[in-house]
Amino acid sequence: MPETDRPQTDRPLVISAPAPRTLDLIFTPDALERLHRRYRVIEADPENIVGLGSAVLSEARYIVGQPPLSADTLERMPRLRAVLNVESNLIDNMPYDVVFQRGIHVLTTGQVFAEPVAEMGLAMALNLARGIVDADVDFREGRERWGGEGNKSARLLSGSEIGIIGFGDLGKALNRVLSGFRAKIRVHDPWLPASVLLDADVEPASLETVLAESDFLFVVAAVTSDNEGFLGAKAFAAMRPGAAFILLSRAGVVDFDALIAAVESGHIRAASDVFPEEPLPLGHPVRRLPGFLRSAHRAGALDIAFKRMGEMVLEDMELMDRSLPPMRCKRAERETVARMRSKPVTVN
Amino acid sequence: MPETDRPQTDRPLVISAPAPRTLDLIFTPDALERLHRRYRVIEADPENIVGLGSAVLSEARYIVGQPPLSADTLERMPRLRAVLNVESNLIDNMPYDVVFQRGIHVLTTGQVFAEPVAEMGLAMALNLARGIVDADVDFREGRERWGGEGNKSARLLSGSEIGIIGFGDLGKALNRVLSGFRAKIRVHDPWLPASVLLDADVEPASLETVLAESDFLFVVAAVTSDNEGFLGAKAFAAMRPGAAFILLSRAGVVDFDALIAAVESGHIRAASDVFPEEPLPLGHPVRRLPGFLRSAHRAGALDIAFKRMGEMVLEDMELMDRSLPPMRCKRAERETVARMRSKPVTVN
Amino acid sequence: MPETDRPQTDRPLVISAPAPRTLDLIFTPDALERLHRRYRVIEADPENIVGLGSAVLSEARYIVGQPPLSADTLERMPRLRAVLNVESNLIDNMPYDVVFQRGIHVLTTGQVFAEPVAEMGLAMALNLARGIVDADVDFREGRERWGGEGNKSARLLSGSEIGIIGFGDLGKALNRVLSGFRAKIRVHDPWLPASVLLDADVEPASLETVLAESDFLFVVAAVTSDNEGFLGAKAFAAMRPGAAFILLSRAGVVDFDALIAAVESGHIRAASDVFPEEPLPLGHPVRRLPGFLRSAHRAGALDIAFKRMGEMVLEDMELMDRSLPPMRCKRAERETVARMRSKPVTVN
Amino acid sequence: MPETDRPQTDRPLVISAPAPRTLDLIFTPDALERLHRRYRVIEADPENIVGLGSAVLSEARYIVGQPPLSADTLERMPRLRAVLNVESNLIDNMPYDVVFQRGIHVLTTGQVFAEPVAEMGLAMALNLARGIVDADVDFREGRERWGGEGNKSARLLSGSEIGIIGFGDLGKALNRVLSGFRAKIRVHDPWLPASVLLDADVEPASLETVLAESDFLFVVAAVTSDNEGFLGAKAFAAMRPGAAFILLSRAGVVDFDALIAAVESGHIRAASDVFPEEPLPLGHPVRRLPGFLRSAHRAGALDIAFKRMGEMVLEDMELMDRSLPPMRCKRAERETVARMRSKPVTVN
Repeated sequence: MPETDRPQTDRPLVISAPAPRTLDLIFTPDALERLHRRYRVIEADPENIVGLGSAVLSEARYIVGQPPLSADTLERMPRLRAVLNVESNLIDNMPYDVVFQRGIHVLTTGQVFAEPVAEMGLAMALNLARGIVDADVDFREGRERWGGEGNKSARLLSGSEIGIIGFGDLGKALNRVLSGFRAKIRVHDPWLPASVLLDADVEPASLETVLAESDFLFVVAAVTSDNEGFLGAKAFAAMRPGAAFILLSRAGVVDFDALIAAVESGHIRAASDVFPEEPLPLGHPVRRLPGFLRSAHRAGALDIAFKRMGEMVLEDMELMDRSLPPMRCKRAERETVARMRSKPVTVN
Repeated sequence: MPETDRPQTDRPLVISAPAPRTLDLIFTPDALERLHRRYRVIEADPENIVGLGSAVLSEARYIVGQPPLSADTLERMPRLRAVLNVESNLIDNMPYDVVFQRGIHVLTTGQVFAEPVAEMGLAMALNLARGIVDADVDFREGRERWGGEGNKSARLLSGSEIGIIGFGDLGKALNRVLSGFRAKIRVHDPWLPASVLLDADVEPASLETVLAESDFLFVVAAVTSDNEGFLGAKAFAAMRPGAAFILLSRAGVVDFDALIAAVESGHIRAASDVFPEEPLPLGHPVRRLPGFLRSAHRAGALDIAFKRMGEMVLEDMELMDRSLPPMRCKRAERETVARMRSKPVTVN
Repeated sequence: MPETDRPQTDRPLVISAPAPRTLDLIFTPDALERLHRRYRVIEADPENIVGLGSAVLSEARYIVGQPPLSADTLERMPRLRAVLNVESNLIDNMPYDVVFQRGIHVLTTGQVFAEPVAEMGLAMALNLARGIVDADVDFREGRERWGGEGNKSARLLSGSEIGIIGFGDLGKALNRVLSGFRAKIRVHDPWLPASVLLDADVEPASLETVLAESDFLFVVAAVTSDNEGFLGAKAFAAMRPGAAFILLSRAGVVDFDALIAAVESGHIRAASDVFPEEPLPLGHPVRRLPGFLRSAHRAGALDIAFKRMGEMVLEDMELMDRSLPPMRCKRAERETVARMRSKPVTVN
Repeated sequence: MPETDRPQTDRPLVISAPAPRTLDLIFTPDALERLHRRYRVIEADPENIVGLGSAVLSEARYIVGQPPLSADTLERMPRLRAVLNVESNLIDNMPYDVVFQRGIHVLTTGQVFAEPVAEMGLAMALNLARGIVDADVDFREGRERWGGEGNKSARLLSGSEIGIIGFGDLGKALNRVLSGFRAKIRVHDPWLPASVLLDADVEPASLETVLAESDFLFVVAAVTSDNEGFLGAKAFAAMRPGAAFILLSRAGVVDFDALIAAVESGHIRAASDVFPEEPLPLGHPVRRLPGFLRSAHRAGALDIAFKRMGEMVLEDMELMDRSLPPMRCKRAERETVARMRSKPVTVN
């Protein structure tokens, strides 16, 4: 495609407002060069998009970031094709009805985190199954137990029953890294029809079933207005004794005190990448809770993931430049945008 | 098959000498019941098989265990079809030339450990890639780093280059649990022709290549008279900076001091399930070595693995009862039996 | 979900205008019963939707079928959420700009044909590779050749290089049935970014590359205003001698005379499920062309596929009833709806 | 491995007696060059191996082919390590007890046919499912039926229930090419324990079950003294109406007249690559039997398959040269060699 590679004299205009990300975080040097070669990039103060003035607004084709946009400002941007959100959250800071009516795509790039989070999730499951952290700490301290002696509560993933709550990008990535374990994988996702799950070779299941029939249960559902705290004491009580509960999405879906109590009682083991407050207060009981594996919201935040964001943004802008629909990023949906509830990130 | 299920009046005779295992370790209650229903089982002192007397010896069809057997004793066992070794090691305590000449199968059941060890190996790789143990310990101590701050040296398995040294049951099991990671997997195994590896969808490679081109290197080769200590300072120096070295077979294939030095220098990270002495002296430097993940020879020794041994033994005896060759256990090979060098296990 | 199963007193209203399909074709008896239990279904003359009158129009939530709709009629349907097209083609018979502006989903169900067409495509490839039709005809006539004698031009799919043009539902289904052949699979799809193809474990490629480097080339691209007849004499000349060209989407993407010439010359072999005229005139040269395998547009039209249409329609209506976005059918895209060019079907 | 590549002054001696194959059939020019570089190759008359004389016999390390060998001749070949049979059948023309006692490997290379035969088997299944041959013949004659009209008895492999009788190399290759169809695959193989089948992700099943519960039934079992004609009228009657019976191994396992009757009655459809007599008499009723797909023993006999034989032979000789066991070819088994019954091939 010669058009793609030629330096363009009349490059489309991109407004750059990626905070809290930066262009350097999300683009490799090569990708950044490609961005500038294909587009005129105007850096903007996210809090003052309107201050860019009419010349810029009237010409802008894309916004990278999700700055607040008023109906008025949008009105002044007749050529806007897409808002490319480089966080994983949607903030309610623009009139989405207008945006959808005009067919402006609101695109999210959160799927870059799916693969790193899935790997961390699998690592957590294997760690809980084999007690790897405590075994290593014991070994450092000279109190390790050898051979079968150290394996009294060890179990295998291979051949186990696994539940996944939520089957978006992250659920799919998890299913992928689990593909070598010959496990029975059940998925609960009330936003997806059964046949879509069957096509992905997983078994559609109710919440009750994934709670009651899983040796390992992964929670990767986004927080919505419908599901805050939906996993509480009753849910944990319904789980198999010794089962592993692995929380990878947002603390908001869980009653965290109930989770702590369930682990403390010895009924289940758990791991989490997310916490009710981040950073967590120093005295928080989960810090020293046995049977619990902690990760400080670092499951997804790998440099390689951020760099893929920029790649996705470029790929979809290049499709839209050719008047094709974006196929790489995820599109916000008219029906669900208002339901999303997760807090904006403050650190990368 | 009605013949199989019917209690037999004239049951074949099995000599049981499974030490250091016990029948209760390797058989589930159901399997033990099946064993006794189908066979007359004579418990024997492994050190005194000959003491069983002519009536037993002349009738014995199978030995479960690997007791010492002299040529004379074998001579007195004309009906012997197989020695079912329930360790993972072959000991040089019988005249193998006679055994092979007579077509007595020497069967090993070590493949029951392949799946548990493969899962542990994958867990080790993910732990090294993401620093999970130190992150959890830091979290306990209140010094955890959040988000990308904690991920400076994190990396992904997905899309990485992986080397496997040795492609027996364990190498194959590793390849299986790695199947969801879209990694490039190279295998070095001098005992296998290239086409066998290609059929398994891995790339055959020289030792030099797997050392130099792997982000994660798994060592699952058995110790033989040919390869003791073959991975030393030069091998580690050839590895990529930051690569992960994961030792799962036997400490004897590695120069352990050189391994420690390579990790200490920061050149590579490592994990090991096996050590030059087991148990390891309390003051051994590997105990507190940063960048090293320790497991006290517990990767394989799961109860579920031991129970599969009994299952394998039963399945192959039932085939041999029908004058078919054993297809479940691994057969010792005339050519290589003398080369095997790993020490007998002393604990289960 | 008790709400789903309970007979509803206030059932949402569905306008049924599925011609040329019928409800009996696309719904199993069970599904039809479920449709009627959940919805009030009004059968309509597709040519006279407006004739249904205001009471029906103002209440209608879904249309099953794609009857012509004027802006006026749409104006009178304020509750319309989706038009569920049960053909595989979009006809330009409604003001799509209005439809998209209002967020009315235009849903297509053509993916039900993906699996049957993919199986037929694979069958065609294997038939061309092994000359199965001619071998059977020869056998009937007593002139078969035995063993290697009959295999002079036979080849394997396993390990071959395969090209796929178009990676929609059908391309993905093809990739799936090809997964057991260890083939190198390259895909050309100008509407998809490279990274989406890489995620599907196929290699993104230019048109030139898939033409020149394939032993088997599958064409599953839809006809658009951009690509009519894009595969002509030059394309066929660029293919490998003896390669197989398999046409599964629409005859419009191919210069059919050039295809016939390329097969006649012996340069390539071909199979097609679609033809420039359907039915094809009796004297058409492709009818007796050696090296060509013919299928009378029957690759997809299996009863099981039609029945899945009804299932998809129900699944997505049930999601939309819950104010969730449809996740089963494919949505028409604002950007591309006007580009689609395939003729409506006249027979099922 | 420098030793491997260096031209050897003292090359091991190979007796070449590959009839009915020829060295040119089974070796590529490159492989043949490698053979001659590494070995002294003595061409022999298979009927007169002893005529080679003591110098040759006493030195011979390998025999390529399966010439008759007397106990006497073997006695004169003290250095013989392997007989590399390049047919797919074992003939009872040497004292196997002596051979096994001495640890001389008898190796077969028939697995080269597994992949081509599996592809043909899948092609046959798809052809029976979709009526491809008759549809093409009808199209040639101008009586084709379009769309759904031509699909009244069409069915899908995807999601079907499939039975495989015999799980040697060919059964495994079939399982591989079937991996993209999400089918339920059951295997009956009385020579394999259940757990081996479970490890291959197939379901172990009795003969009764695979007969009664399969939409597609593949027969790939070798003929043995135990199973001649074991699939007869009763077996076919137990099959599902409309099921497809695909015979790929040897005609001897089937009562062919009963098979013809079952197809003639319309109860099942069938395909076969093998026949009771080959070539088949001109008037044989199977020649024009509707619902039957014929292939003249050409499923495996591809040039690429023969060339892999030579590759396998070289790979295993190179391992044995290093005193390692052969790992590429299949080894004849002491227990079963006498049971094999298939006739020698007379054409390639």
